[in-house]
Amino acid sequence: MTAYDTNNIFAKILRGEIPSHRVYEDEHTVAFMDVMPQANGHTLVIPKAPSRNILDADPQTLARLLPVVQKVAVAAKEAFEADGVTVIQFNEPAAGQTVYHLHFHVIPRIEGLPLKPHSGTMEDQGVLAANAEKLRKALAQ
Amino acid sequence: MTAYDTNNIFAKILRGEIPSHRVYEDEHTVAFMDVMPQANGHTLVIPKAPSRNILDADPQTLARLLPVVQKVAVAAKEAFEADGVTVIQFNEPAAGQTVYHLHFHVIPRIEGLPLKPHSGTMEDQGVLAANAEKLRKALAQ
Repeated sequence: MTAYDTNNIFAKILRGEIPSHRVYEDEHTVAFMDVMPQANGHTLVIPKAPSRNILDADPQTLARLLPVVQKVAVAAKEAFEADGVTVIQFNEPAAGQTVYHLHFHVIPRIEGLPLKPHSGTMEDQGVLAANAEKLRKALAQ
Repeated sequence: MTAYDTNNIFAKILRGEIPSHRVYEDEHTVAFMDVMPQANGHTLVIPKAPSRNILDADPQTLARLLPVVQKVAVAAKEAFEADGVTVIQFNEPAAGQTVYHLHFHVIPRIEGLPLKPHSGTMEDQGVLAANAEKLRKALAQ
């Protein structure tokens, strides 16, 4: 297992060195909008603990993380009037992992609308900010 | 939220009414080989608790489930000499859910090899049995 890189982009987001549209935070977990969404409302849920992916994470970290993934999934389905939610988590480059801090993708799904590719195109910051506000409201209910 | 259907195929597998290539079981969780694998070694991890998907599951069920997903992911990476692991979980038809009992897909990934579509083609039972045996051995280590 490759060692955890403390300069990965999500580590920088956790330290506040890079801005993010944060929608949720507790003692162990943070959630924020994906800047290259595969669907409207695409959100990432990450542990604060430095874990490369699911393969090296502390089981206790995982036990705390999935209930937050659930909170975000339920709120995102409501906030973005989605018909379903896809939850994906990639481990290592062969699986499509590109940032080496454990993260769960929570992607609201609309019936008949395929996922956009993870193309490298940044979403408009205004759209991300508005979506984050919608999701925060749904999470606060 | 649609009510849990006690006659879904995974409920039948849990009750032993339908055979499966089971690789792991504890008080709360079962894992078995996917009969329509998207890659060699594709495994499903499910809670025993009757949950339709992540949207209606008890948070405690989720807290217990993800550490088992981890165990299976680590063992499957080893057993199938994979380069990575994709973890996917679908909620509602719009997201691609087809069996309405909460399940996590754990899919070993080989560098450069795309996932096969979930095509409806059944894998050979001998291949599934051999893969289950490999995975049981890796899980026992």
